[in-house]
Amino acid sequence: MLNQERRLRMRRAMEAKQLDALILRLPENVLLLSGHWPMIGAAYLVFPREGTSVCIVPECYQAEVCSSLVDCEAIYYALGGAMDPPTAVAVKDLLAQQVKPGWRTIGYEGDFEMVAPSWNAAESLVPTASYHRLLREACEGKTLVDVTRLMLEERVLKTPYEITRLAIASEVSCFGLEAFEQAVGIGISGVQLAAQVEQAVMVRGTGYRESVRVRAFAQVTTGHAETACAHRPNVISTMRPMGEGDIAVLELGVVADGYWADRTRVRLAGHARDEQIRIFETVRKAQEAAVASIHPGVRARDVDAAARAVIEDAGYGASFPHVTGHGLGFGYHEPAPILGPRSEDVLEEGMFTSVEPGIYTAVYGGVRIEDDVVVTKDGVLVLGPYKKVLS
Amino acid sequence: MLNQERRLRMRRAMEAKQLDALILRLPENVLLLSGHWPMIGAAYLVFPREGTSVCIVPECYQAEVCSSLVDCEAIYYALGGAMDPPTAVAVKDLLAQQVKPGWRTIGYEGDFEMVAPSWNAAESLVPTASYHRLLREACEGKTLVDVTRLMLEERVLKTPYEITRLAIASEVSCFGLEAFEQAVGIGISGVQLAAQVEQAVMVRGTGYRESVRVRAFAQVTTGHAETACAHRPNVISTMRPMGEGDIAVLELGVVADGYWADRTRVRLAGHARDEQIRIFETVRKAQEAAVASIHPGVRARDVDAAARAVIEDAGYGASFPHVTGHGLGFGYHEPAPILGPRSEDVLEEGMFTSVEPGIYTAVYGGVRIEDDVVVTKDGVLVLGPYKKVLS
Repeated sequence: MLNQERRLRMRRAMEAKQLDALILRLPENVLLLSGHWPMIGAAYLVFPREGTSVCIVPECYQAEVCSSLVDCEAIYYALGGAMDPPTAVAVKDLLAQQVKPGWRTIGYEGDFEMVAPSWNAAESLVPTASYHRLLREACEGKTLVDVTRLMLEERVLKTPYEITRLAIASEVSCFGLEAFEQAVGIGISGVQLAAQVEQAVMVRGTGYRESVRVRAFAQVTTGHAETACAHRPNVISTMRPMGEGDIAVLELGVVADGYWADRTRVRLAGHARDEQIRIFETVRKAQEAAVASIHPGVRARDVDAAARAVIEDAGYGASFPHVTGHGLGFGYHEPAPILGPRSEDVLEEGMFTSVEPGIYTAVYGGVRIEDDVVVTKDGVLVLGPYKKVLS
Repeated sequence: MLNQERRLRMRRAMEAKQLDALILRLPENVLLLSGHWPMIGAAYLVFPREGTSVCIVPECYQAEVCSSLVDCEAIYYALGGAMDPPTAVAVKDLLAQQVKPGWRTIGYEGDFEMVAPSWNAAESLVPTASYHRLLREACEGKTLVDVTRLMLEERVLKTPYEITRLAIASEVSCFGLEAFEQAVGIGISGVQLAAQVEQAVMVRGTGYRESVRVRAFAQVTTGHAETACAHRPNVISTMRPMGEGDIAVLELGVVADGYWADRTRVRLAGHARDEQIRIFETVRKAQEAAVASIHPGVRARDVDAAARAVIEDAGYGASFPHVTGHGLGFGYHEPAPILGPRSEDVLEEGMFTSVEPGIYTAVYGGVRIEDDVVVTKDGVLVLGPYKKVLS
């Protein structure tokens, strides 16, 4: 059955932690254990250590739920506004009915900080104080335990099924890389490039290998001043038109039915200067050296060192100010593994990480190349491989 | 000074509630009181009842912060990963330094449920348990009060400055409505339409009246079966190609530098049947009747009734299953006012609401028309007016 390994593994972890059940609301965790990727965040998954899971969802999502739930029953409620007391009361009663008398300890998400959006990223619903009150009432007499960190830990090692799904997301991201490559040229702006990349991913990605809900989030910086800052989190795109010799850096997040890819490519308009080519080749070699160093048992800091050595040897060590990679999968970023100089992580089969060294200088602009890779039994696999070309 | 009225009004509300300061983290509330719309959610606004506000932000955002903060000082910290303890410690110390000895009661956001994204909607950071611990330590000896609801209440009445900004968002949304109108035709899919609308809003909206960060979230249903469900929250777009006589419904959320618009238009491919024209005209008249009924002092349920009467008179009362409108502005949806049959709200000058009646039938498909309007001293103003045409 689809991704049974995930549910078996989760139940073993629950046994070790003496958890009788989980009640989960973050869409990424509902997806993890039920196969259903909820819109907005109005689904409640009751996942017992023994017995059948139940997902409590708005009745208007019946069709999606029926086609995606695995190993899990559905119960429906009428969706009112998020602030609508009758909805909350209905959910509380439905939740309370699922709480078994024999349960003593129930896990919930109380400390998540990062929120991944659904296909419609315009609004997310997250559990905070009102929901915690509802949960305490629905679980009267039980001990509630915050399992946010446990869920993140369990997510670090991906199952074969999940890797298949992550490969689809990475392959879909290539539609964006291709659109970017074709569109870069003198006169086009970062905003135009970002919009074309997002359009390509949505149009060509929807339906690809049965993908249903696909969306991209692109950030494109152009020119020396902007790309020299392209390692900043969430730098924005501007209307600045590209000029002769300008580099464009595409930072691309893609979600396909709840599974994420995180890619970066650079592309130059006009003619590259020799030093730009040298920087690009250095980053490419650093990225490939880091990928080549990955296998089960390697220290994450040694993967970072493999990339960093290539960049230091080329004289650009001071221009690589970030870590070489980070975990991801059920979100754009996940806290483990971190491929950085101070990381204590050791890579294991099933881990999924970005590999993304870069060089950023005020004179030549910024260059970063990023792929997502899975640690395999024997080494490493790049998901959705795509060429690395400057111009 | 820009939007001084907002800060004066907030300080009066704080006096009434005996709050000495607010410490806010939701980007929409940081924007409300500081003028700065943070990326991701890693900014902390300390807003005292007396004295100068301070915004604690990642140092990499210095340029954006300097160009947007009004009546507020900036303090910077080095941004580590969201799970990185050193960052949290740095923020805690910076926060603690801002907490004045004389303060007794400090407001924070503990119960927000809905999260509005920033320009990069791929990831949001929200305050939950870890942040609450940090806050308690930084505010040792003070009483912390959850002000989530107070903030929402204060946001109901928009200031003249905010209405100007909301008008920009509504005007930008028209670029999406226009792209939709031009693209609808036999053979095109909802996914293609949604992607083209989002592209048009980003490309034409960025730079419009000095807008910097513009993004659209479009959902396009096509054909009778899909559009008959177009009142469902967050219905998705599909690859189904439009056929002769199909209606397409565009549900469009637009954010321009933190201010939101929410629009809907419908468009038919090929030739309309008489009854489709009659339904469209009924919805158009209902929408305009609701808008025309709006003035300070009117009951929100009477605005809903104005739309509902037109639809009932046409014999489609049972096919209008939702409320006529909802508040919005600093998010895609806000809890007040609600234009619905059971609403207790009374409209006041400065309120901002969608007006969006619809008719949904299995035989002819769904039709909805939506604009956003502000209640003025004398009546009502439609922001970003745009024509309503079926084909």
